[in-house]
Amino acid sequence: MLLDKTIASILPPDESLAKLAQQRLDNLTKPVGSLGRLEELACRYVVMRGEAVPDLPKKAIFTFAGDHGVTEEGVSAFPKEVTRQMVYNFLRGGAGINVLARHAGADVFVVDIGVDHDFGELDGLLQRKVVSGTKNFTKGPAMTREEAVRTLETGIAIASEYADRGYSLFATGEMGIGNTTPSSAIVAAVAGAPAAEVTGRGTGISDAALQNKVRVIEQGLALNRPNPEDALDILAKVGGAEIGGIAGLILGAAARRIPVVIDGFISTAGALIAHGIAPAAREYMFAAHASVEIGHRIMLKRLHLQPMLDLNLRLGEGTGAALAMFLIDGGLKIYREMATFGEAGVSTEE
Amino acid sequence: MLLDKTIASILPPDESLAKLAQQRLDNLTKPVGSLGRLEELACRYVVMRGEAVPDLPKKAIFTFAGDHGVTEEGVSAFPKEVTRQMVYNFLRGGAGINVLARHAGADVFVVDIGVDHDFGELDGLLQRKVVSGTKNFTKGPAMTREEAVRTLETGIAIASEYADRGYSLFATGEMGIGNTTPSSAIVAAVAGAPAAEVTGRGTGISDAALQNKVRVIEQGLALNRPNPEDALDILAKVGGAEIGGIAGLILGAAARRIPVVIDGFISTAGALIAHGIAPAAREYMFAAHASVEIGHRIMLKRLHLQPMLDLNLRLGEGTGAALAMFLIDGGLKIYREMATFGEAGVSTEE
Repeated sequence: MLLDKTIASILPPDESLAKLAQQRLDNLTKPVGSLGRLEELACRYVVMRGEAVPDLPKKAIFTFAGDHGVTEEGVSAFPKEVTRQMVYNFLRGGAGINVLARHAGADVFVVDIGVDHDFGELDGLLQRKVVSGTKNFTKGPAMTREEAVRTLETGIAIASEYADRGYSLFATGEMGIGNTTPSSAIVAAVAGAPAAEVTGRGTGISDAALQNKVRVIEQGLALNRPNPEDALDILAKVGGAEIGGIAGLILGAAARRIPVVIDGFISTAGALIAHGIAPAAREYMFAAHASVEIGHRIMLKRLHLQPMLDLNLRLGEGTGAALAMFLIDGGLKIYREMATFGEAGVSTEE
Repeated sequence: MLLDKTIASILPPDESLAKLAQQRLDNLTKPVGSLGRLEELACRYVVMRGEAVPDLPKKAIFTFAGDHGVTEEGVSAFPKEVTRQMVYNFLRGGAGINVLARHAGADVFVVDIGVDHDFGELDGLLQRKVVSGTKNFTKGPAMTREEAVRTLETGIAIASEYADRGYSLFATGEMGIGNTTPSSAIVAAVAGAPAAEVTGRGTGISDAALQNKVRVIEQGLALNRPNPEDALDILAKVGGAEIGGIAGLILGAAARRIPVVIDGFISTAGALIAHGIAPAAREYMFAAHASVEIGHRIMLKRLHLQPMLDLNLRLGEGTGAALAMFLIDGGLKIYREMATFGEAGVSTEE
């Protein structure tokens, strides 16, 4: 119900605003187009929000946490309990995302959507558990279709709540030991690519572990046979709860015309699912950075998104998105605060 | 005197600190190396400053302004008076560099080192005029060797003053209609490259104007024959006052162990001059971004610098450097503020 309603309310933005925004930029005291992608970010933000001169955004980063049954197959360098340990670290403010979100002036919200641990009452944690970890997809589907829908609707509901609280720029982030494995499985399924071409080292596994990871993904795809035309089927069979949450957040944001900064590899797997469910959602996405993970490039190409940063990041959590938010803010400040040629008494081109 | 004394006090930094810094980073709650270039920036800053845990930097951007006699040859899309008009715009806070410096938390200092205009008493302007515009280098040297030394010493003196005032991270910027022309001439002279391979469109000139610009540079080099082994000779004959100021700032910063963020094409021409005068100065440089100007790549390669950002910028003023300062601050905050595995109770790799 909520999912269908949300899909129906995602409309392509009014692209005619881009021309107006570029005219404003071209009148500022700088050679035409000389601030490159900062100008483009400002124009896209204007188009997405549907406002000629938007306020500077109030920024929220959502870090969705979930566990993965497939960690039983030895796909990660870290033990599974690190997912819950990192949730505590987020809530105490000691993780990379906390540092970079503070640096970028964004708030971080941590969502338990699928951790295999009972946190009890815990200050600051959004308790929205759909599953206590997914199932091992080499033995059957990771989630039921109904659970997958619930992960999406959880993300949609969060988008709606935080839109109501005045946030106007979202970013996605995640924590889930093992979650590059479902992300590679998703891009393999969506793009029909061989697992070996879209599978990387995640947190940093050995050659032998990488070979095993590829084999695990091949096995999961062969057993579950997700329908490449049905993003929900892919999410359920070889995805993860936090990936569903991210996809839902994107859908909910697009329905409310709130731009979403997509972090790295796992977040972009969520973006692929959102795009498969509602293609127009793509128009509300910014790609933060080019991840070290090899499958990321293929994902971004399918989404026609060009990342802003290339800093060899592979941490996730939303860290690359936090940095990208600074660039979007920078573009908007240029758009709003620079003097025009007329105001400054500066001569234009001869 | 000041120049020689400064060159003598530029020492290569203690690289052994890099290992210590990386050990600290590897103990933080993230996979080893997963913050990529942010970690590298923090390590380099530690090495440059020579301190194991440096404070967050106090940041200054110096925008050197100068005019160019070679504008008589029609090398720019903008009239020459835009240099002084933009100085007024900087002082009123309406230019791109003002907006982005505020965004990055850096102070901007505007230096008249060579504008062909008498500003009189003007609040906020550093009045350090060495020349009232350079001479047209198609008719003789742009500056005398003595003037070139004075531009360098002006930059050195500023570095020293602002180091004394507690600034610990500098960035270079410039304003000077026509100044991509001397910058292309400098890289052609230093690298022995054909002018056509290192000359771009600057603020945005036509095909015909670009051909003329290449011819002007070829003419200037053929007439003045700068000695490729003598950076000071190159600066004097085909350079510019603001380029000399930037080179001097870098030398003065290196002598005080203050890292300098090099902005785009013109700033990197200054960095080439500084490197030619004192090769160890390179160890104190950060390259902000990859400029659209085609000669920039060749400059960065000669300096063995890898830019942090690639945003199709070509404004100058220090704008790319302001954005890059945010990334350096980000790396240092990661270095200083993240929890360790021990502090956070997070398990390490299996």
